[in-house]
Amino acid sequence: MKTTISIEKTKSERTRHPEDQLGFGKYFADHMFIAEYSEGSWKEARIVPYGPLSLDPGASVFHYGQALFEGMKAFRGQNDRIHLFRPDFHVRRLAHGAEKLCMPSVPAELFTEAVEALVKVDSSWIPKSEGSALYLRPTLIGTESFLGVRPSQKYLFFIITSPVGPYYSEGFNPVKIWIERSRVRAAVGGLGDIKAGANYAASLAASTAAKKKDFAQVLWLDSMERKYIEEVGTMNVFFKINDEVITPALNGSILAGATRDCVIQLLKSWNIPVTERKISIDEVFDAHKTGQLKEVFGSGTAAVVSSVGELADQDHRITINNNQVGDLTKKLLNEITSIQLGKKSDPFGWVKVLES
Amino acid sequence: MKTTISIEKTKSERTRHPEDQLGFGKYFADHMFIAEYSEGSWKEARIVPYGPLSLDPGASVFHYGQALFEGMKAFRGQNDRIHLFRPDFHVRRLAHGAEKLCMPSVPAELFTEAVEALVKVDSSWIPKSEGSALYLRPTLIGTESFLGVRPSQKYLFFIITSPVGPYYSEGFNPVKIWIERSRVRAAVGGLGDIKAGANYAASLAASTAAKKKDFAQVLWLDSMERKYIEEVGTMNVFFKINDEVITPALNGSILAGATRDCVIQLLKSWNIPVTERKISIDEVFDAHKTGQLKEVFGSGTAAVVSSVGELADQDHRITINNNQVGDLTKKLLNEITSIQLGKKSDPFGWVKVLES
Ligand SMILES: Cc1ncc(COP(=O)(O)O)c(C=O)c1O
Ligand SMILES: Cc1ncc(COP(=O)(O)O)c(C=O)c1O
Repeated sequence: MKTTISIEKTKSERTRHPEDQLGFGKYFADHMFIAEYSEGSWKEARIVPYGPLSLDPGASVFHYGQALFEGMKAFRGQNDRIHLFRPDFHVRRLAHGAEKLCMPSVPAELFTEAVEALVKVDSSWIPKSEGSALYLRPTLIGTESFLGVRPSQKYLFFIITSPVGPYYSEGFNPVKIWIERSRVRAAVGGLGDIKAGANYAASLAASTAAKKKDFAQVLWLDSMERKYIEEVGTMNVFFKINDEVITPALNGSILAGATRDCVIQLLKSWNIPVTERKISIDEVFDAHKTGQLKEVFGSGTAAVVSSVGELADQDHRITINNNQVGDLTKKLLNEITSIQLGKKSDPFGWVKVLES
Repeated sequence: MKTTISIEKTKSERTRHPEDQLGFGKYFADHMFIAEYSEGSWKEARIVPYGPLSLDPGASVFHYGQALFEGMKAFRGQNDRIHLFRPDFHVRRLAHGAEKLCMPSVPAELFTEAVEALVKVDSSWIPKSEGSALYLRPTLIGTESFLGVRPSQKYLFFIITSPVGPYYSEGFNPVKIWIERSRVRAAVGGLGDIKAGANYAASLAASTAAKKKDFAQVLWLDSMERKYIEEVGTMNVFFKINDEVITPALNGSILAGATRDCVIQLLKSWNIPVTERKISIDEVFDAHKTGQLKEVFGSGTAAVVSSVGELADQDHRITINNNQVGDLTKKLLNEITSIQLGKKSDPFGWVKVLES
C-alpha cells in the first residue's frame, strides 16, 4: 500500500556548515516529514520546510511524557547512492515502544516511505566525509489537549534530519565512562527497553554530574541490586575478557540497540565467542585486576563503535588497554562503517540502497 | 522583587460550559501565562490569550523528556474572593523537580505573581459549585533544539487553567483500584518523587489495562520487592487499620503530595494516630481478613480525598467498608474542602486569599 506524501519545497534554504564542524544534532536539513493521527488513522502525510510545530499547551507530550523516538542514519555510499542503515529494525523498535506507551504504531510502509522520500528531498544534506552521516530522528508525540491522565487520542509523527559528525568530542578516540552508583535510569517493568523520552529525562542529572568530572557518559547498573551492568547513556556496552566478548543480556530495562545487534552478528560470523548474560561491575574489575580485561567498547547509532579507555567510580579507576583503541573494537568499527558505505558487501542485509 | 507581567487580553472568548458538565481538564480558560528562559534568566513574562505554542521540532521536550508540571487549585471563597490553595507548597515541589531534571527553577516570586495575575485575569472562570475549582497547571519544558543528550539551555514556563468538576466519573463515591503486579512506575534513584512527565508515561499502560477491567486507577508497588505499597496513579494512599491511619513513608520514589501533607496535618491536629511507614499489600489483605481494615482513601489535588471501595488483583478482591465512604474519609474531605472555600478557619495557613 502506497502512502501519498505531498511535498512542499522550502523557499529559503537553511545555512550549511562545513563537514568538519558538524558536531552532533546541532544543525537540521531543509525539510521535515510530518503526519497526524486522529480518530484511528494517520492523515496528511507531508514533507514541508523544516520549521516550528504548533501545539496546544495542554498537549499530552508536555504533561504526560508521551514521546518516543528513533535514531538512524543515511549515508552517501558507492556511486553516490543513498544508503539507509537498518530502517526495518528501527520501524520495529518504534512499534514496540509505541505499544508500551499506549501510542498508535506507525505503519511500516508509512515509516519507510516517509524516510525514503525525506532523504531524497534532502539528499544534498548527506555529508560525504568519513565518520559523518545524515542522522534521522523519527519522533512520535501525543498532541491531544487534555489534562486527565490517560493516553492521548491524537498524535504527531515527524522526522527531522541532521547532518552529523562523530558523536563524541573525542572523535573515535577512547572515552571515559563514569559508573553511576545511586541514580537509576530504568527498572525492569518500566520503559528502559524503548526509546522513550522518559528514560533520557531520568538520565540527565547523572550524565551532567559525570561530565563535570570530565567523563563522557555514565555506565548504568541494574535498579534492583545495583551491581549488574545495563548500558551506557546512549550506547550498549561490550567487554572483551580473554577471548570472549560479553554484553549484558536484554532484561527488559536495557535498550536493544541496532548496533548491538550488528556487533553480535559480526562476532558470530567471525567465530569470536560472544555471550549475552548478566555481568556485574565487580566481575569487570576482577578481570581487570587479573589482566584478563582486554577491551571495552560501546555500540550505538550515533557513536557507532566507541572504545572505552577508562571506567571509574568513587573508589575505582581502571584504564583499559592502555587507553588505546583495541584491535577488535577497531575491526568492528571499520567493518560496520564499510558496510554502511557499501565499501564491503552486506551479508546481513542491513543496508537499503535507494534508487534515485 | 516584583516581576513585570504584561497582559494581552483575548479578543475572542472561549466557550464556557455548564458547571455540572466540566469533567476534568477538558476545557481551558481564556488566558495563559508564559515566560522564556535563556542565557541564565527568565524573560518576557506575559499573560496572553490561550493558544498554541510554537516549538522547534528538535526541542528537548519532544526527545529527552524535559517536562515537569504542578497541579493546584483556585476556589471561589467566602465574599466571592479568590482562594489559592497551598501555592508555596507547589512552587517548592516544582523547584525540587526542576533540580532533578537539570532545569532552571522558577523563582518563587515569578511563580506566585504569575499564578495570581492569571487567576485574576480569568477569575470569571472559577466555578462556584461544590466540588468544582479552577485547576492550574504550571508547566516547565525544555525548548532548545539540539539532539545530543544533555539538558536544554532554553526553557518555557507556562500556566494554563481549566475549570474542573470531580476527577473521577464516580464523583465522590468510592473508586475501585487495581493492584499492579508487573509494571513499575518509578524506582528509588529515579524520578518518582517529582511531577515529571516521565512518570506518567510509565503509568499509562497499567492504568489503561486497569480501566479496561473497570478499575479507576492502579495501586503501585515498590520496584525492588514488589510488595510495599507506593501510591495510586494520581493520589497518595492511606489505610485506616483499627484506629490508626497508615500511609507509605516517602522513600524517594513516591510523590510527596500536597493533599497527603494536609491529611497528615489534620489527623495529627485531631489526635488520630497517623504513621508514615512501609506497608505491604499483604499487610492490607491480612488486616482485611481479620476485620481490622476500616477505611482506604486516596489524596490528591484533583480528587481531594477519595474513598477506595475495592482493591483487587489477579488473586484477590476485597471490598472495604462495604463499599461505603467511611466516616474519617468523609470528615477529611469535608474539612479540606471547607478550608479551601473559607467556610472553616485555616489554622495551617494553606489558603492564600487574593486581594481584588
Ligand atoms: C539508552 C541507549 N542505549 C543504547 C543505544 C544504542 O542503540 P542503537 O544501536 O540502536 O543506536 C541508544 C541509542 O542511541 C540509547 O539511547
Ligand atoms: C503520582 C501522583 N501521586 C500523588 C499525587 C497527589 O499529589 P497532590 O496532593 O500534591 O496533588 C499526584 C497528584 O496529582 C500524583 O500525580
